[in-house]
Amino acid sequence: MSTEEKKTGRACGEQWWTTDIIEMRPGMIRLRGYAIEELIGRVSFPAMIWLMLRGELPSEEQADLLGIALSAAVDHGPQAPSIAIARMAATCGVGINSAMASAINVLGDVHGGAGEQALEFFGGIAAAMDGGATLRQAVRDRLDHFFATEKGYVPGLGHRFHPVDPRAPRLLDVTRDFSARGVVAGRFADIAEAVEAEVERRKGKKIPLNIDGATAVIYGELGFPPPLTRGLFVLSRSVGILAHAWEQSQRRERNKGPLPREWLWAYEGTPARGLE
Amino acid sequence: MSTEEKKTGRACGEQWWTTDIIEMRPGMIRLRGYAIEELIGRVSFPAMIWLMLRGELPSEEQADLLGIALSAAVDHGPQAPSIAIARMAATCGVGINSAMASAINVLGDVHGGAGEQALEFFGGIAAAMDGGATLRQAVRDRLDHFFATEKGYVPGLGHRFHPVDPRAPRLLDVTRDFSARGVVAGRFADIAEAVEAEVERRKGKKIPLNIDGATAVIYGELGFPPPLTRGLFVLSRSVGILAHAWEQSQRRERNKGPLPREWLWAYEGTPARGLE
Amino acid sequence: MSTEEKKTGRACGEQWWTTDIIEMRPGMIRLRGYAIEELIGRVSFPAMIWLMLRGELPSEEQADLLGIALSAAVDHGPQAPSIAIARMAATCGVGINSAMASAINVLGDVHGGAGEQALEFFGGIAAAMDGGATLRQAVRDRLDHFFATEKGYVPGLGHRFHPVDPRAPRLLDVTRDFSARGVVAGRFADIAEAVEAEVERRKGKKIPLNIDGATAVIYGELGFPPPLTRGLFVLSRSVGILAHAWEQSQRRERNKGPLPREWLWAYEGTPARGLE
Amino acid sequence: MSTEEKKTGRACGEQWWTTDIIEMRPGMIRLRGYAIEELIGRVSFPAMIWLMLRGELPSEEQADLLGIALSAAVDHGPQAPSIAIARMAATCGVGINSAMASAINVLGDVHGGAGEQALEFFGGIAAAMDGGATLRQAVRDRLDHFFATEKGYVPGLGHRFHPVDPRAPRLLDVTRDFSARGVVAGRFADIAEAVEAEVERRKGKKIPLNIDGATAVIYGELGFPPPLTRGLFVLSRSVGILAHAWEQSQRRERNKGPLPREWLWAYEGTPARGLE
Repeated sequence: MSTEEKKTGRACGEQWWTTDIIEMRPGMIRLRGYAIEELIGRVSFPAMIWLMLRGELPSEEQADLLGIALSAAVDHGPQAPSIAIARMAATCGVGINSAMASAINVLGDVHGGAGEQALEFFGGIAAAMDGGATLRQAVRDRLDHFFATEKGYVPGLGHRFHPVDPRAPRLLDVTRDFSARGVVAGRFADIAEAVEAEVERRKGKKIPLNIDGATAVIYGELGFPPPLTRGLFVLSRSVGILAHAWEQSQRRERNKGPLPREWLWAYEGTPARGLE
Repeated sequence: MSTEEKKTGRACGEQWWTTDIIEMRPGMIRLRGYAIEELIGRVSFPAMIWLMLRGELPSEEQADLLGIALSAAVDHGPQAPSIAIARMAATCGVGINSAMASAINVLGDVHGGAGEQALEFFGGIAAAMDGGATLRQAVRDRLDHFFATEKGYVPGLGHRFHPVDPRAPRLLDVTRDFSARGVVAGRFADIAEAVEAEVERRKGKKIPLNIDGATAVIYGELGFPPPLTRGLFVLSRSVGILAHAWEQSQRRERNKGPLPREWLWAYEGTPARGLE
Repeated sequence: MSTEEKKTGRACGEQWWTTDIIEMRPGMIRLRGYAIEELIGRVSFPAMIWLMLRGELPSEEQADLLGIALSAAVDHGPQAPSIAIARMAATCGVGINSAMASAINVLGDVHGGAGEQALEFFGGIAAAMDGGATLRQAVRDRLDHFFATEKGYVPGLGHRFHPVDPRAPRLLDVTRDFSARGVVAGRFADIAEAVEAEVERRKGKKIPLNIDGATAVIYGELGFPPPLTRGLFVLSRSVGILAHAWEQSQRRERNKGPLPREWLWAYEGTPARGLE
Repeated sequence: MSTEEKKTGRACGEQWWTTDIIEMRPGMIRLRGYAIEELIGRVSFPAMIWLMLRGELPSEEQADLLGIALSAAVDHGPQAPSIAIARMAATCGVGINSAMASAINVLGDVHGGAGEQALEFFGGIAAAMDGGATLRQAVRDRLDHFFATEKGYVPGLGHRFHPVDPRAPRLLDVTRDFSARGVVAGRFADIAEAVEAEVERRKGKKIPLNIDGATAVIYGELGFPPPLTRGLFVLSRSVGILAHAWEQSQRRERNKGPLPREWLWAYEGTPARGLE
């Protein structure tokens, strides 16, 4: 048998799918090196999430803090497109998995990406501090750059509905508690508050931290890279998506549209015409 | 090299994915045996759809009739969950393919399955006729069975919004034209009209054929199996889904919810309470 | 203003979207009646999942057991279509939310429904016991019915890959522990073991409980209705889906196909032919 | 009744969903101003697609050319992630619409965006020509810029599998035919060929136009904006996705994985270890 044949055989097929996450043989499942039957009952669900994503088990306190961030963002009601979609999909004759998929699918750059953007923003400030800048200077430089070249709202601050998002100050308090107990450094909490203060100084009014900024603080403290935090948000919001899809599915509505059934939409296009 | 090794090599991998649809080699693409460069410019888009799904090319007239059915169901406005979802998704920061996917995903048993159910219903009557029953008797037997054991509306009849769906009589007329020209037999048109008449006789009022019944007639005339007609409906409605996603994407709204922004939803759950 | 106008105004719009899950006003978010800032930091992530789905908070032990079931099913490797799809999608230029959605979407009746079916099966036996049957008789009757009228494998038993699924006996042991501590009744564990024993008696060989049967036991003990357990499986498997999508996204592959790139698929359709 | 109340009533709800595409009243459906019953049977499926997306009916020849481009890209076999996903999804117990949705969802920037990128590239050259540059100069400037600042392959050229993609030269020939008959100007065909020639001059070898470049030529000739061409590609590839999902669904496989069932994947992660 030639070496080339070996390379194109079963070994090559198996090599095409490689992973560091899971090892299996008949009767054996290992996640990140741990036998599944050892993990079951000994690690919490947030710890399992952490292990799967990071490759190592967190401390119990780290897992607790992750669970807190995951719990905070589960739902924001049916005005959120994702929740409305889950409910509408549940009336269309698809499984609950598909209702969830249609909803999760829209947690994109705009609907699901704000936390990622906030962590990128805070992380840039942290990197400047690693390079020797003071917190104050790093925040000022980043905001100078932001107002000079970027548009819109400072990532992680402000909310179009809540004057103060009740989740954000509570999450900051919790982070401070974990920091006081030595679980995390508190650095991202410092950064977020410094950004908030500096924006207030410049704008003359407070634009408070929002849920995306607050969860970004926690994910940053725990060492998650920004793009992965979108995935964490998906895990979190999936809970609300499931709850709403489930509630709706109990109601026997069919093909639920966005408006009361007797209402239509406004047509503003070309008036009635014939084919020449 | 053992025979077993041969079976688990590259040949085995390639055998895992088999298809009758497409053959490829570098510089060569054949669909159902035809070189792609021969098909391009010589067969219409509906003919290509037919070839891919059925394995043989249709006559030009058959392709025309398929195209007519596909064109008839492209849109029914943003009160349809699929269209609303496409528009909402387009504001959430995902690609137009993902906005389309979230929408297409909800064309399930309830939202997308009515044509399939109508064709099953009409097809059962056709089968009874193949077994020797007259049209009249086959329709009566099927409706006897329906009213005795099944629930809800007779498949293919009635519409919750349109007293008469303007698409249905037009599609029947077109089918009659194609039948007169010998393209199709007209049998499913006969069946649909006989069902409509018998239901009117029993109910004392006309419940007219709807779009799902009318397209089921055409797909039945053309020999498509019922479950495949849901796929044809997806191809058709995808056009409206794309048009609405595209229109919405030009409007710069962000995270469009189902209701005007200043409206919320009605909360009817447990009143405010504390954690003991 | 007429009463009718009132009904078609803002109140009617808000009434179109009703929920028992979440209440919001500017600066206020309540989930199932609890202020979000009270929940944050005081309930675990599994407890939050329970609250959202069931409307009441579980005991700490109930939440722990739910978390154990959720942790057990997070991954079964890239031979599972959902995991393979997540990895392939991650190479196609879509966000991680969309890679997850394409994968979650396939957790349908076959891929994601086994736990639901197992709980329906065990629940039927529990209902017979509520009606006065002994465990032994209820199991025998249900299996008589199954072998007489249904097809395939007994729900919750057997695995095409694992002779004994290492997750199942461990989950049963854990359930017994929680039962010994009075958290759950242990009734579904009894039922599952009785089914396993009776099938062994009839078949002459043991077909051991699988992961779907074992998680069905736990969800049954905790009082979840069968169709909701598919949603719980989605939450669980989403963790593995995210982990694999994330790992794959770090690898810079583009448009990853199912087989090594130099392999094709086997074409078995119509040989090459020309257009007449 | 106050003005404010009027604004927040039914009119406001209906205004929240506005569209130029479809107008409906009971018994009436108009698309872009045309009564649906007038369109049915009188416009081809590609013409309907054009009308829905652009707002006006195309000429018959324009519709034909659109149909040709749509037909050319329907399938590229199961090594494409979208097709493999459609087939795998079809074995997981979801409807054909959901199998299609999981597949369409991955036609993202990498898998579905090449045509869009090619049309952006060619369109930039066309814009330079509108500004007074010669074809030759505009192509050189654009390529200078590309090689100086962008990475990877020139959009629309080259294929990792086909030395010459058999679809591309055929589509160019067809475009030239339509140009000779005055249907289109032929400008994008000129641009594509000039780009191909200039790249050959610089690289010393021909990197031929691919399917994405060739369909971009046609969509450019027909006046479609680049981001909409991704939507057109979705409509086109949906045909292959449906054909493969349908073929697979006839085969009774369950949970089809990416590799032959007896093969696993290669685990390359942390070796087996215990929980301390």
